[in-house]
Amino acid sequence: MVTGSGKWLAVHPVKGFRLGTAMAGIRQHGRRDLVVMTWEAGSSVAGVFTRNRFCAAPVLLARERLPCSPRYFLVNTGNANAGTGEPGLLAAKQTCAELARLSGVRESQVLPFSTGVIGEPLPANKLCAAMPEALADLKEDNWFCAGQGIMTTDTWPKGSTRQFNHAGVTYTVSGISKGAGMIKPDMATMLAYIATDAAVESSFLQQVLAEIADQSFNRITVDGDTSTNDSFMLVSTGQAGNAAVSAKDSQLAEKLIATIREVAVELAMAIVRDGEGASKFVAVRVEGAETCQDALAVAYTIAHSPLVKTALFASDPNWGRILAAVGRAPVAVMAIERVSIWLNKLAIVEHGQPSASYSEDAGQQVMNQSEIMIRISLGVGVATEEVWTTDLSHEYIKINAGYRS
Amino acid sequence: MVTGSGKWLAVHPVKGFRLGTAMAGIRQHGRRDLVVMTWEAGSSVAGVFTRNRFCAAPVLLARERLPCSPRYFLVNTGNANAGTGEPGLLAAKQTCAELARLSGVRESQVLPFSTGVIGEPLPANKLCAAMPEALADLKEDNWFCAGQGIMTTDTWPKGSTRQFNHAGVTYTVSGISKGAGMIKPDMATMLAYIATDAAVESSFLQQVLAEIADQSFNRITVDGDTSTNDSFMLVSTGQAGNAAVSAKDSQLAEKLIATIREVAVELAMAIVRDGEGASKFVAVRVEGAETCQDALAVAYTIAHSPLVKTALFASDPNWGRILAAVGRAPVAVMAIERVSIWLNKLAIVEHGQPSASYSEDAGQQVMNQSEIMIRISLGVGVATEEVWTTDLSHEYIKINAGYRS
Repeated sequence: MVTGSGKWLAVHPVKGFRLGTAMAGIRQHGRRDLVVMTWEAGSSVAGVFTRNRFCAAPVLLARERLPCSPRYFLVNTGNANAGTGEPGLLAAKQTCAELARLSGVRESQVLPFSTGVIGEPLPANKLCAAMPEALADLKEDNWFCAGQGIMTTDTWPKGSTRQFNHAGVTYTVSGISKGAGMIKPDMATMLAYIATDAAVESSFLQQVLAEIADQSFNRITVDGDTSTNDSFMLVSTGQAGNAAVSAKDSQLAEKLIATIREVAVELAMAIVRDGEGASKFVAVRVEGAETCQDALAVAYTIAHSPLVKTALFASDPNWGRILAAVGRAPVAVMAIERVSIWLNKLAIVEHGQPSASYSEDAGQQVMNQSEIMIRISLGVGVATEEVWTTDLSHEYIKINAGYRS
Repeated sequence: MVTGSGKWLAVHPVKGFRLGTAMAGIRQHGRRDLVVMTWEAGSSVAGVFTRNRFCAAPVLLARERLPCSPRYFLVNTGNANAGTGEPGLLAAKQTCAELARLSGVRESQVLPFSTGVIGEPLPANKLCAAMPEALADLKEDNWFCAGQGIMTTDTWPKGSTRQFNHAGVTYTVSGISKGAGMIKPDMATMLAYIATDAAVESSFLQQVLAEIADQSFNRITVDGDTSTNDSFMLVSTGQAGNAAVSAKDSQLAEKLIATIREVAVELAMAIVRDGEGASKFVAVRVEGAETCQDALAVAYTIAHSPLVKTALFASDPNWGRILAAVGRAPVAVMAIERVSIWLNKLAIVEHGQPSASYSEDAGQQVMNQSEIMIRISLGVGVATEEVWTTDLSHEYIKINAGYRS
């Protein structure tokens, strides 16, 4: 963990959404490693999943079952059930079938999620044995334990919560996430679950989720390695009693979407802040691009550059590395004489030339900080994008070379 | 330095191509840091340069002057003259003008090349002062000193040489390269110079060079960071006396191209082998792709994955990381059920499923080696590409975070 307090702030319960945990002893004994979430019938459920083609068995199932009126999420940590072939798919199905049997829903209404070691068989029997404990534990005020229950190498549980008022009704949006996995895909996976008591029409909820994912979890990168298991789910229970939101053209829709986005961004940033081996939180903002795609291409080229990342770790105001990364970004339109670059508010390049006002001392002052913004203006359009990342440290190598010892 | 002997093998002189060095004291005293190369009038000269848009002043000049019947290369180490704006361009022009004055050629016939620290003013006067010494040193049998004279953080000079016979004539192809810079862009730059005494028509030489660059220097990556100064030059002096080669449809053309390619590949691989912080030489080969572009996209995704690279450093047969990297590669056509992956000859994934014959012991045996091939078959076409890279080690972080201290 780098920056951010790591302190858990109380997460508001969401009416109609319950969570339960158990210790199934999947990889270690004595830790919560099984989480069950459930919600009232009639809720809407949306989800986005990893684009990695080698996606894990649970991702295949969860994606397939998303349209089948889901009622349960079944999450385990300690084992990613990825790279496990056909037996992995059967094991995932077996656990879902057992939860369906115990809870009286259809098997297709249970969506599985796994995170942990890749390539080892899922101990389905351990999961099944612990299910009654998790089901007995189901309650609305259980976000903290669930946040703990989905952790792998995270150093703290990640929660976020917001409430807002509209027309005399208080609406709640709460969520949990886990990460660190982006830099440790053995302990694979970014997982996030957000619930709200607002009523939202199902296909609109999916549209909202996809947009918000692009503005939050799809904007974080530690090392560019997309995991096999990444999933981000959103449930609206409708218990607040509003007429279901089905378009953006209402004040309630605007407030709700903004609030879900805030929660998602906070959960996403928490993953970067807890990136193991990281000592800095770095925002890379690209403005004035011809397209959003170009802005992202430049931002990711910088965010993934090992040379920029090691300079950040060393607190070295090595602007030549940033400049070189911008220059090699895969975009069609770039005019060097229009490019300007800042470290926080300090100009390092102006219109393609080294800034006359830049000094090493001033650069050093910015680089010594634990939160840094690298801002680039391309000067060829109006598109802007921002991504969040970390530095690259000795600790990263130690963790990722040393794991599986 | 990782693998490879690092031993200099005598490089054959190339008739009509002379090299001279001097100690100009650009960054350090007592080391060769100025290299001049020259060739007979009537030679053909070809060149390819970095695609980085923030390319250095010497690259701008060398690229512009390539069509002007070049007669001299002027190379300095210790300062990259990159990120130096207009003053950098003026300094580069000043050094070329001085060499032109001393040697009696036109200024536009002198092509400058710089490698070293980014963002510091080029000490043009030091270069100019040392030029007479370098010119007095010009001789055909001077490749070793020139190889040393272009080094920055390289741990050994890199040379390669081949001879072949055709119709009773012995032809020579010799070259030098420098690298390590790919992982240290402060000490920026990959530079390579190859000369042959064969006569080759100028535009055909450029075509040959571009093709060979794609099969050699454009296939190596340490960290994906393209420098601001990369240049690869090829000179044919024609002193062997053949009728100028102008197409591929002759036995001489075939032999010559194959020989230049061999020299270029050896020089390119030497750069990877000498990559600082690297402990392994890794070939990533992708077969059965729909297009060469797809094959390269998959190969580079693996070669740039920090997780694959740290696993290689740890000699950890962590095949899940390779599989995840293949799965997220940006290609249009991939059918998981057709993908197979090998570590050297050991199958780890067959037709999208973990190989039944794989064992951790066997995987460990491969990973313990210092030269490893990761081979992927996509099974959707016939295109094949191969790239060469290294692992990612503590030493890499140490070097790149610690530099500029």
